[in-house]
Amino acid sequence: MFKLFYAPGTCALATHIALEEASAPYEAVRLDFGSQAQRSPEYLAINPKGRVPALVTDSGTLTETPGLLFFVAQRFPQAELAPLSDPFALARVQEFNSYLCATVHVAHAHGRRGSRWADDAAAIEAMKQKVPATMTECAELIEHKLLKGPWVMGEGYTICDPYLFTIGTWLEGDGVDTTKLPRIVEHRNRMLARPAVQKAVATEGTQLP
Amino acid sequence: MFKLFYAPGTCALATHIALEEASAPYEAVRLDFGSQAQRSPEYLAINPKGRVPALVTDSGTLTETPGLLFFVAQRFPQAELAPLSDPFALARVQEFNSYLCATVHVAHAHGRRGSRWADDAAAIEAMKQKVPATMTECAELIEHKLLKGPWVMGEGYTICDPYLFTIGTWLEGDGVDTTKLPRIVEHRNRMLARPAVQKAVATEGTQLP
Repeated sequence: MFKLFYAPGTCALATHIALEEASAPYEAVRLDFGSQAQRSPEYLAINPKGRVPALVTDSGTLTETPGLLFFVAQRFPQAELAPLSDPFALARVQEFNSYLCATVHVAHAHGRRGSRWADDAAAIEAMKQKVPATMTECAELIEHKLLKGPWVMGEGYTICDPYLFTIGTWLEGDGVDTTKLPRIVEHRNRMLARPAVQKAVATEGTQLP
Repeated sequence: MFKLFYAPGTCALATHIALEEASAPYEAVRLDFGSQAQRSPEYLAINPKGRVPALVTDSGTLTETPGLLFFVAQRFPQAELAPLSDPFALARVQEFNSYLCATVHVAHAHGRRGSRWADDAAAIEAMKQKVPATMTECAELIEHKLLKGPWVMGEGYTICDPYLFTIGTWLEGDGVDTTKLPRIVEHRNRMLARPAVQKAVATEGTQLP
């Protein structure tokens, strides 16, 4: 039995959905970011980074969304969540998820967690101001170049899909005009029709745009 | 024959080393960032993100360092650059590389490419000021918790090692006091004894601290 530590509105939702898709045995444990539970000594003993997601397994605790998604895909191959034996196709999956974690999620974080990268209040405000532009640029690259449709990688549903869905729930809040991103919106609706997505969203109480 | 597009001083060095370790057939192509070659129409046709690394293969062009490193490991399994068939051990590899790309590389980038996240000159300067602190925090987590030794994952050399080595060459320039990071420095020296590392470093003309 795995234990997934999550907080609503974070990228932990992607791993949550993947665990559901794989019918993995897991328990979802909510952390209260309002009371800074992610900084408590108990949680830092589980994940010294003080963030979510963290997945506690019999072998140890794993973190970082791209690694967790791949772990779920490889550990539950019958769910067919990634083209595990095709190096090029799998590299495409990892490329997409790396882009989400290192560029898109990072762009989003400048709107809420600017204090990670500067101490000055005016600088933090300046970062916040740029989020609509950076997130729009990222979303346009996805809309026009990366999202093949109907799923991110084309005909096959993969671990890219819950990750795009998760980050996609942030777009409107980040000031992105999604009326100009019909393919991303269609993908979101396609995701919402899946029972695994509905269950994870209901458990977390995810706020949908 | 692959074609690896790189620029000196960038994270492309990690993939360059991995290709050497795997004895992969490849050609290294230098991009002149000084003349903004990464923004030329020719290069944007290869990689619309306008960054390096990009690896041109017979099947298409791949980007994003964690994806590229894993691709090299899976495509050349005889080089044993990753525990390909052990989901938990492989998740650890991906977790480490995700941390490097989404947290450590991003912290570093705030010193040189702050204009990605704010337009205001004072804000960009404020980001630069914080780089020594954020990079020191990242390096300390690696030094004390993540780097098992002698290699990142312990006894076995993996795709985590060229990536740590590459980002490690930035530490002194980012204002990190490496005299307090003996394990990272030992790892760097261990890497420099490997012919694959020597060859990639010599080809790129990598400036070592």
